[in-house]
Amino acid sequence: MSKQELPVADATAEACCSPLTTEPLGAERATELARVFKAMGDPVRLRLLSMIASHQGGEACVCELTGVFDLSGPTISHHLKVLREAGLISGERRGTWVYYRVQPDRIHQVSALLDLDAVS
Amino acid sequence: MSKQELPVADATAEACCSPLTTEPLGAERATELARVFKAMGDPVRLRLLSMIASHQGGEACVCELTGVFDLSGPTISHHLKVLREAGLISGERRGTWVYYRVQPDRIHQVSALLDLDAVS
Repeated sequence: MSKQELPVADATAEACCSPLTTEPLGAERATELARVFKAMGDPVRLRLLSMIASHQGGEACVCELTGVFDLSGPTISHHLKVLREAGLISGERRGTWVYYRVQPDRIHQVSALLDLDAVS
Repeated sequence: MSKQELPVADATAEACCSPLTTEPLGAERATELARVFKAMGDPVRLRLLSMIASHQGGEACVCELTGVFDLSGPTISHHLKVLREAGLISGERRGTWVYYRVQPDRIHQVSALLDLDAVS
């Protein structure tokens, strides 16, 4: 069985980020983070992300993700690619199928940004 | 001095939401949340949001937000409108200027969605 890691954005490049309340975001950091939010700014992608995140074992086969939507396989693949390129999920090919997992580092990164309780 | 609340999306309609890891998002909820993420999916809007959130007193005058960017007033106003319509900020006109505040309920809502530690 072939085992192949698909290319993933480097989600761990920066460990984390300060909450929004700490200081204004710089242009570069804002561009990087906006890309992640933009990837989540689509209902289908958000549902795919939640399906993967909530799947038993934290991993979902692409074969389990396509049937839920009234969308073509290539359209679903495109959405998964956007999530992958934003570093929100990683995909690993095992045999016929690709299996997806959430990338917790990236989720924590954006979650930390939105932590308004971190600074009074 | 006139004091006028600008229209804001109802950020408190739903108190909160389950983390992504709990269960797949429904179509309706995903559409609502995707709109919020999409509003944050732009570098200028994300910087505006952080400028407002980190401003002393938690409130920023539109007059303090426009000078930072090499963008026209109407463009900045458009971005602020998108943030407002997504329920992320509220604006209040006092005299000549509009003053913006972050809407913590909305931020908590999306932050809760991304709380991967909430469920093991």
